[in-house]
Amino acid sequence: MSLRVAILSTGEELTTGKIADTNAQWLADRCFGLGIDVAAVLVVGDDRERITWAWERAFDIADLVVCTGGLGPTTDDLTTETVAALLGESLRFDEASAEQVRKLFASMNREMPESNLRQAYFPQSATILENPMGTAPGYRVTCERDIGGEWITRHLVVMPGVPREMKPMFDERVLPWLTSLPGVGAAPVTRVFQTFGMSESALGERVSGLLGMEDVRVSYRASFPKIAVKLILAGSLAGAEQRVEGLAVRVREALGPVIYAEGEATMEEEVGRVLRANNATMAAAESCTGGLIGHRVTDVPGCSQYFLADFVTYSNEAKVRVLGVSAQTLDSFGAVSEETVREMAAGARRLSGADVAVATSGVAGPDGGTKERPVGTVCFGLDADGVQLSRRHQLWGTRAWIKLLTSQIALDWVRRWGLGLPVLESGFRS
Amino acid sequence: MSLRVAILSTGEELTTGKIADTNAQWLADRCFGLGIDVAAVLVVGDDRERITWAWERAFDIADLVVCTGGLGPTTDDLTTETVAALLGESLRFDEASAEQVRKLFASMNREMPESNLRQAYFPQSATILENPMGTAPGYRVTCERDIGGEWITRHLVVMPGVPREMKPMFDERVLPWLTSLPGVGAAPVTRVFQTFGMSESALGERVSGLLGMEDVRVSYRASFPKIAVKLILAGSLAGAEQRVEGLAVRVREALGPVIYAEGEATMEEEVGRVLRANNATMAAAESCTGGLIGHRVTDVPGCSQYFLADFVTYSNEAKVRVLGVSAQTLDSFGAVSEETVREMAAGARRLSGADVAVATSGVAGPDGGTKERPVGTVCFGLDADGVQLSRRHQLWGTRAWIKLLTSQIALDWVRRWGLGLPVLESGFRS
Repeated sequence: MSLRVAILSTGEELTTGKIADTNAQWLADRCFGLGIDVAAVLVVGDDRERITWAWERAFDIADLVVCTGGLGPTTDDLTTETVAALLGESLRFDEASAEQVRKLFASMNREMPESNLRQAYFPQSATILENPMGTAPGYRVTCERDIGGEWITRHLVVMPGVPREMKPMFDERVLPWLTSLPGVGAAPVTRVFQTFGMSESALGERVSGLLGMEDVRVSYRASFPKIAVKLILAGSLAGAEQRVEGLAVRVREALGPVIYAEGEATMEEEVGRVLRANNATMAAAESCTGGLIGHRVTDVPGCSQYFLADFVTYSNEAKVRVLGVSAQTLDSFGAVSEETVREMAAGARRLSGADVAVATSGVAGPDGGTKERPVGTVCFGLDADGVQLSRRHQLWGTRAWIKLLTSQIALDWVRRWGLGLPVLESGFRS
Repeated sequence: MSLRVAILSTGEELTTGKIADTNAQWLADRCFGLGIDVAAVLVVGDDRERITWAWERAFDIADLVVCTGGLGPTTDDLTTETVAALLGESLRFDEASAEQVRKLFASMNREMPESNLRQAYFPQSATILENPMGTAPGYRVTCERDIGGEWITRHLVVMPGVPREMKPMFDERVLPWLTSLPGVGAAPVTRVFQTFGMSESALGERVSGLLGMEDVRVSYRASFPKIAVKLILAGSLAGAEQRVEGLAVRVREALGPVIYAEGEATMEEEVGRVLRANNATMAAAESCTGGLIGHRVTDVPGCSQYFLADFVTYSNEAKVRVLGVSAQTLDSFGAVSEETVREMAAGARRLSGADVAVATSGVAGPDGGTKERPVGTVCFGLDADGVQLSRRHQLWGTRAWIKLLTSQIALDWVRRWGLGLPVLESGFRS
């Protein structure tokens, strides 16, 4: 009998439709992986009566209630006082938590508003869950509740609603305790392949042919511009590890370089790994991506070892003055041309002294499209010792999509160059 | 008294975390716009018992229940038989709906599986809602239910879970009927202020003092690094517009330039608006932000009118070779110093010919911190005609967080410069 959980999300931003309840999805996914049965998700606004109602309904159907939201310092943050009332407990002040909040503010040379001390109060019986990412600690409580005349054990977990704070709190402070509860299974055996350049249906056709013998499940999760292919098998099954790895080997063969990473690694992390392995440095020259390539590369800690410089030459004048693109090239072929991006890449490499430089120039839209160069037209260039590549692609979608897809293709070019793979085959042929 | 709605979403893909419940968000947003009060969102899997439970809980707290999902042709689509049982009604076959399903398949030259006829059965009292987009019609029912010994009117709306089918069905078939119900109509009067530079609790203290006389509600939505302050008043109340605007005036006074925009505008859009108004151009020189400033500025369509170039000089050598920062400055003060960012900003302006240039250099972490310059140390510089500003800030958080906050402060500097406001007061003093 697996543990039943109810996920409780609170916040006016949810009941007024300002944001989607991604916390509930993330938590449900985590629970699914642990063989925990999600009995229901309940969402209510910042209203004492409704929060109380939701908790009571959750206790009716679940052994464990995981609640997010309502731990902020303002008066519309009502979770803790509501929980304490439900438990029939008073609030206790936790000096250690208060001290941590003071420290956080001190580290920013900021005075702590008194109201922030509200976040240092907890129900008497609460076990506090530290929050390294913010000022609102979470907590958990195990209690006996009268459910239809019977005293039954119920577990409560309360966490902040900010995903950036909630996710690490769950993985680091809640999971170890959770997996010790009865009815919580061994984590499933999984393999995740990060792919770029093939449509979901194309991936499905390649992979489905490999299945059958094993009872391994495959799930595809598209989060533009990448698609993750995940193999899943219940950890309780005999030889699960070997069976999943056996299929993983065949998936690697079937997809080849379309797989740019395994596990949760990002394209920019993979680019860093490849450049380090080659002891190589990189630079970029961006127009339509406006700095997104450099931003992604520098999201990776330690990138200063291989990332030297990025030249965002948005105006034609900057392309000439900064990167040394010839005015004649711009006149004859235009800013969005293979000729221009080749000179941009060469200029970026010359100026930075990097081993490889990638360049982008295109029409991100929504305006600026012409008959010859409609919105979505993007040219890519790569310059390295003895290598000068360029290609024009017709992309699609919103401005944000085109920028993101363009940065992904450019990064994949650098990855493929570093791995000695055919660079021009990158992209998105389905 | 506004109509209370409960949104009920069914489907295993929701309770296993495969997808987020975007239908609930979309419906909540629609309801909010109509002044309908979303009392709760309930999500359960494809389980007869749990779907029944969810419907009963929904009837307890809402006048109207809007349900999506479970109308498919397969045996795990249980919504209609569950609803009929709740209503104590048998199912009736609707020939017209069946004919439409047959037509749809014929139009695709596909044979209709018998199972699809399940989608032509409805509770006896149901008013059918055509589905031009798919094979599953929706329906609505108005009934009297015994709620705690009293007969009370309840409305049910049942729609397919596929967003592409649900959304037009709601707008075309449900809305016209819905707006005829008592308690539906006048959308609430709202004002949204986008703020940066003050903590949520500090904002709360400033704003709460203004409240009281009015019954205007205030909600704070922190989506790092900005915090939106929203004033809300039911549109049905007399003089709602004037009362909200009256408070809005006082909020503008109380928060001043901490408000960077009203409505949904972003900081980068506001920077663009201010630069256009001044007919001014900008450039940037980035180190720790790695291109994020340029990326954000170029997310705004038409930015080519004011954004010229961005120099991401990650290595010290690039700072010297590209921006002309003096090697001596780097030697004596280091890359993360007010002296260096001043020269970076000056170099970016000189190279690009922009009217204003902003520069960032800092320690984004997690490594690279020293005793003098711990992780989070960031220096900002701004260079314009007759203006040379710099400041060192101690930021905090993850690498991504520090990059984002740094880009926000830099953009706010440009905004304040363009508005003739004291630039150095930007940041996050509470």
